[in-house]
Amino acid sequence: MKISQLLGLRFKETPADCQITSHALMVRGGYIKNVGSGIISLYAPAKRIMQKIEAIIRDEMNRIGGQEVMLPVVMPAALWKESGRFDSVGSELLRFKDRGGNDMVLGMTHEEAVVHLVRGAAPSYSHYPFMVYQIQTKFRDEPRARAGLIRVREFTMKDAYSFHTSQEDLEEYYEECHKAYERIFARAGLPEAVSVKSDSGMMGGKVAHEFMLLNDVGEDTIIICASCDFRSNMEAAENIVEKPAGSPDEASDRHAVAKALEGAACPACGKKAITAKNGIEIGNIFQLGTKYSEAMGMQYTDKDDNLQYPIMGCYGIGVGRLAASVCEARHDKFGPIWPMSIAPWQVHLCALMSDTPEVSEAAAKIYGGLLKAGVEVIFDDRAVSAGVMFSDADLLGCPLRLIVSPKTCQRNAVEFVSRDKTLKIDLPLDLGNIDGLISAVNQQIVKQMEFSLPVLRL
Amino acid sequence: MKISQLLGLRFKETPADCQITSHALMVRGGYIKNVGSGIISLYAPAKRIMQKIEAIIRDEMNRIGGQEVMLPVVMPAALWKESGRFDSVGSELLRFKDRGGNDMVLGMTHEEAVVHLVRGAAPSYSHYPFMVYQIQTKFRDEPRARAGLIRVREFTMKDAYSFHTSQEDLEEYYEECHKAYERIFARAGLPEAVSVKSDSGMMGGKVAHEFMLLNDVGEDTIIICASCDFRSNMEAAENIVEKPAGSPDEASDRHAVAKALEGAACPACGKKAITAKNGIEIGNIFQLGTKYSEAMGMQYTDKDDNLQYPIMGCYGIGVGRLAASVCEARHDKFGPIWPMSIAPWQVHLCALMSDTPEVSEAAAKIYGGLLKAGVEVIFDDRAVSAGVMFSDADLLGCPLRLIVSPKTCQRNAVEFVSRDKTLKIDLPLDLGNIDGLISAVNQQIVKQMEFSLPVLRL
Repeated sequence: MKISQLLGLRFKETPADCQITSHALMVRGGYIKNVGSGIISLYAPAKRIMQKIEAIIRDEMNRIGGQEVMLPVVMPAALWKESGRFDSVGSELLRFKDRGGNDMVLGMTHEEAVVHLVRGAAPSYSHYPFMVYQIQTKFRDEPRARAGLIRVREFTMKDAYSFHTSQEDLEEYYEECHKAYERIFARAGLPEAVSVKSDSGMMGGKVAHEFMLLNDVGEDTIIICASCDFRSNMEAAENIVEKPAGSPDEASDRHAVAKALEGAACPACGKKAITAKNGIEIGNIFQLGTKYSEAMGMQYTDKDDNLQYPIMGCYGIGVGRLAASVCEARHDKFGPIWPMSIAPWQVHLCALMSDTPEVSEAAAKIYGGLLKAGVEVIFDDRAVSAGVMFSDADLLGCPLRLIVSPKTCQRNAVEFVSRDKTLKIDLPLDLGNIDGLISAVNQQIVKQMEFSLPVLRL
Repeated sequence: MKISQLLGLRFKETPADCQITSHALMVRGGYIKNVGSGIISLYAPAKRIMQKIEAIIRDEMNRIGGQEVMLPVVMPAALWKESGRFDSVGSELLRFKDRGGNDMVLGMTHEEAVVHLVRGAAPSYSHYPFMVYQIQTKFRDEPRARAGLIRVREFTMKDAYSFHTSQEDLEEYYEECHKAYERIFARAGLPEAVSVKSDSGMMGGKVAHEFMLLNDVGEDTIIICASCDFRSNMEAAENIVEKPAGSPDEASDRHAVAKALEGAACPACGKKAITAKNGIEIGNIFQLGTKYSEAMGMQYTDKDDNLQYPIMGCYGIGVGRLAASVCEARHDKFGPIWPMSIAPWQVHLCALMSDTPEVSEAAAKIYGGLLKAGVEVIFDDRAVSAGVMFSDADLLGCPLRLIVSPKTCQRNAVEFVSRDKTLKIDLPLDLGNIDGLISAVNQQIVKQMEFSLPVLRL
């Protein structure tokens, strides 16, 4: 599309309420607009990024046998009373009454809804195992929404739920899902994401992992051994790493605890190599057990005709938070550097001094050629300075940029640069045969998609 | 996928609470499950149908220059107070307070939210015209939710909003959008949908159209002239067709009014040829004017540096209602007959007596071949009777069916039938060269997609 038609203004100044980079860049780049505390509207560039992440997630969820379903945003409180969570969950669960005076809740997670959906539909062991997932709006009434898409009240989430007839089967599937998550984060542009075991073994036998992007702006603290591959979140660490005397106990003071743990002995290798890092939680997987199937009376008949409760796992990814995390990890001072796999457009075409006939003609032909070849292109032919044009392009962060100007036309060329500045070449411009140019661009697109391929072989 | 893994049970008996066919078939076919009044979860087949309809809608909205955005489900009431609708709309607008005691609403339509999104982003006439749209969950607190996906409280809707600098420009775009809607309904399987002008000209100059599927189960009544192309909804008709003496005036008694109007003189051609039909409203388009831009202070600078209010249009389609309407229009007594364009799967593969080695081998090869060719296939290799297998296939309504049985294997063939029973042929089965079979299936898929092509040339 043409940038002149794109809704969302781009600007230079960092808004006062933006404390982290991804928030500032996504406001300054015309990606998001705040509607209320933790409630955010998306302009087209952000929506396009979200859709690409969602497509990657769908692909990987389907690959491990998931079937996509849809559960309600608004639920009768009766479901949450069945599970006991209507009373046990705090005010982050938004409760209200409908016009008929019935208690309702806004879904912040969907264990209850998914058990309601499947409990009559899998009466025999032959239906197991299975996994259903959805990508959908959720609402969690956070008291301290902040940081743009990192911590919001309304958010788009992929939540998946698997059902099994044995703990072994759950564990096997859990491992498959762990690998799918590694592929998802790598394909979305965060191959460096790490999983952290949040095993609270002594307190109920539950196993869970959080996927973390290590980053200073993260609100979570992760304990890492510099000597072996031991990683743990703070809650789990507090149970396994000996706390130095005098360290505070309050969870609210985790950073102090983490600091106090620095250099402590690693519970895995014994070396005094424990360090603490901040991280953004970009996904989590959890072995739920039979908590919900028991509470909500979901049973199946096993091979010996006995009634059993299925064992559940659940698996979440916040789509918006993942997008913001990629921006946090992949940017320079001028804007985001989106990976090809989730970029709003693959190519940003800049026509400098587009009122010059040769520029206008060349740019129009290139734009037409790219569209015809199915390349996603944003085209800037506005009568603005090179400075404005390039800073806008930096803020939109498309991985490849084509620049047509009177100068490049004079040397029968188009300038071809990558957003990360690692590529800067001239491509020959032949208006009679534009296909050669388009083909060179396509090759670069393919090349830039390849970074995630090694992970796909996992 | 294999049908044994598909969540959602299929059964024969019509549930007592299902008063219309599409509701009954979608419950009996394992498409939907009721969660509460007007709140419905979707199993995979319904989700797949919805996604195909959404893809068609996206395609046509992008084609007329739309850019996809995302607006919130939960909104601060402040936005609705700005427009005046917080007070003027009845209790179908669900109002509640968040944990901080702030007034909030659940979005049942998004004029306020879209004006909030774009009002700072289009300050000059050069940004106009533009159209933004979203496909998203809405909630309308209907007092009488009923009829499965036809009338619900929570629903998925495509809502689009266009912004213009002149009435002429709005009218031109409105016409384009009208054509896009014709293409959408035709591609989704309802080429017979008609648009009905709901012009309330005398009462404010607003122009609107409703797209209707004429159907006895519809809650709306449409006045049609049997002699010319005059069509009107009841509200508009009451203003233009002379009401016979003694006819009731209450809107609640529209059917009686409609009956009384039968045979009245057509206001367009003058002939006494007025008839009344029931219809399901599957979409609407509306020339909004400056109501929201004025109320919410959205302005732009025109060519002469004067501040102006943009003129808006809005355009809605309920995705779930459209799916149910297709079912209402395309079914037989055994189940839905989904058009190829929105069917949950393109091909339903039945392996009868799949414990027979030759059936098992042939079916597995065909299944693999179809998957490899990118055909969407649901595979039934359960040890169930032909009766169960075929009635399940009828309920899932996939347009093409391949049947492998000991009998077909004996004659080196596969039975190939269409769900609508217009096609029933043997395809030659050669296990050494399965590609010929796959290619024949593919040809039929393409052929069955073609029905909407004439409309695409509109």
